[in-house]
Parts: sequence; C-alpha cells; structure tokens
Amino acid sequence: MTITDTQNNTADNGVNVDALLGAREMLSGAREAAQFTFTAANEWVNGTHSRSTVNEFFGLGDNQAHRQPYSVDTDHPGIFASEDNGPTPPEMVLMGLAGCLTAGVASVAQNRGIQLRSVKSTVEGALDVAGILGIDADVRNGFGGIRVRFEIDADATRDEIEAVIAQSQKRSAVFDAVANPTGIVVELG
Amino acid sequence: MTITDTQNNTADNGVNVDALLGAREMLSGAREAAQFTFTAANEWVNGTHSRSTVNEFFGLGDNQAHRQPYSVDTDHPGIFASEDNGPTPPEMVLMGLAGCLTAGVASVAQNRGIQLRSVKSTVEGALDVAGILGIDADVRNGFGGIRVRFEIDADATRDEIEAVIAQSQKRSAVFDAVANPTGIVVELG
Repeated sequence: MTITDTQNNTADNGVNVDALLGAREMLSGAREAAQFTFTAANEWVNGTHSRSTVNEFFGLGDNQAHRQPYSVDTDHPGIFASEDNGPTPPEMVLMGLAGCLTAGVASVAQNRGIQLRSVKSTVEGALDVAGILGIDADVRNGFGGIRVRFEIDADATRDEIEAVIAQSQKRSAVFDAVANPTGIVVELG
Repeated sequence: MTITDTQNNTADNGVNVDALLGAREMLSGAREAAQFTFTAANEWVNGTHSRSTVNEFFGLGDNQAHRQPYSVDTDHPGIFASEDNGPTPPEMVLMGLAGCLTAGVASVAQNRGIQLRSVKSTVEGALDVAGILGIDADVRNGFGGIRVRFEIDADATRDEIEAVIAQSQKRSAVFDAVANPTGIVVELG
C-alpha cells in the first residue's frame, strides 16, 4: 500500500472527526463548558452483588443525559463464595480501559485517514489477592500491572498502526486514570 | 440500639465471611495461589463503540471462569457525535469503584455483625475534557477528582457505619487502582 492509499479522506470508521474538531475549537474558547462531571449511582442488591447505573451527567455547561440509562451488575466470583452475578469490579476497570483505548484508536485512525477493518484487544491485570484479603500489608490492593495487546487489521503499515495506538494512549481518560493517581473522597451522607 | 444488638452473629448480608476467612487462612500459606490475572477481551464495533467481555481468569493456581461470560458495550455520548451505545469508558471506572466499595461494605459489615438494610452511593468524577481533546496540555486526561457519597441504613451507629466504609476503602482493589499509579504496557500483537 502507499501513502495515498492510507491517508486519503475516504476512510470511514464511523467516527465524526469534523464534529470532534469542531468541539475542540468551540471548547478552546469556552473552557468552562469543558468541565464535565460523570456520575454513577450504585445500589446494593445482596452479598457482594450491587448494581451501578449511569444516566445523567454534566457538561457543556448544562445537564446532559444518555439516550437511556445503562446499568451494570458487579459481583465477586464463585471461588470467593459469591454468586458471580456480573463482572468483578477490577474487571470493570479493565473493560473501561479497553473501551477507552479502542474508541481512541478508531478516532485517531479516522483523523489520519486510516481505514480500520478490525480492532481486537485483550487487557490483562495482575492482582495479588493477598492485598485485599489482608494477608500481607506490603501487597497493594489494586493491580500489580496491566498489559494491553492490540490486534489491528487496517489499511496502514505496522508503524502507522503503532503510532495510532500511541496517540490513543496519550489522550485516553481511563489510561490516565489508572496510570496516574487520582484523589478520591469517600463520605457518608 | 446497643452493642448487643449490633454485634451479634445473626446479621445476614449475604456474604459468606467464614469462606473469606478460610480463603485468607489458606492463601496465607500458599502465596502463589493468591496471584490472580483478570482479563477483558475487547472488540471494536464501529465508531467509538466497542464491546468488552470477561469470562476466564486465572487464580488459585489454575484457570477459572465466570459462570457465564459478561459483556459490556461502551461508547461516547451523543454530544460528541457518537451513538451512545453504552456507558462511557470513564463511567465504567466509576461503576467499578462503586461496586468494589459496596461489596466491601457488605463484607466488612457482615464480619462485624452489622445488619445492612440498604446501601446506596453516588460516585462523581470531574473530568475536564480539555485534556482528552488536546486543548490544554496542562490538563490531565483522567478525572481531576472523584467523590463517593454513601447513604446506608443499618443496625449500627453512624460511627460504626463510617468505620465500615473506611475499612472497605482500605481493602478496595479499585480504590487503590484509581488512587495510586499502576504500570500499563500497551503493545501491538
């Protein structure tokens, strides 16, 4: 393939890059509108099983909403004597990381005129449960490390695809949320 | 209420504490078995829409599996010209945090003989999209901060409930994953 093949404007990955570039332009001059707040509401069901729902959020200076509420049940697995009614909470983080990087890959590829045919990835998180079970205070509760492996079929060279992945990582909200510390306040209402 | 009311053994929050204490005892003497690997597999659908699935994982020295695969679709919202086919990836992190802390609240309360009647929480994450849109390099991509608010109805004093929340936070995998840095390697297979 040639540069002409890979950097034309006919690639269609289903991402509206013009709208994103327009949003960047608009928000550059209206920084208050760039302040978003996402909210998840959780309700305990039983045992380690609970249900989280996202619906409304704040952004562009106003209340916004998904076109419908989205709920996900989380639970612990059977090997910890739970009922396994959904993904474990740490798996939710891995799925969020995968979804974030993949959305970025599609967006960056679109912006670069690269047609994607398939994008698959696996996200592996190593977790020593000696932390959360209180066996060893020197073991952290979270992941010891995370490895993401992409398999991408696209009209582009391997170098171009690697550059797309790198740019996605550079702009990923969830990558940053996991790679770098975030202040969390937990309180009883 | 009295200490006798709140610290008896008749509380039933649906958590098998004996099994968890047994797991702690067993894994204290078999630290290799405490090494878990969780895996999410993601497949791009179109645009910013992708589907993540969890099914098999590794732990207790062997391959394990959920009793069924669990999939979650993630997407970007309509205000960013996407189709809004699911939670946004950052919202997945908030839902994971909520599910993790709530499972911990139920487990710790059970261990302390505290009967829960209801546990609700909201998890708010502030996100300045000037980061992910590349408007301002000084703005991080991830959350500027996260606030978790619990509303808990239980057979316990406010101090006891606050202590349960604090202990859940202290042992939460997702709290640690978000509050503290995690090494992430991203590669093309």
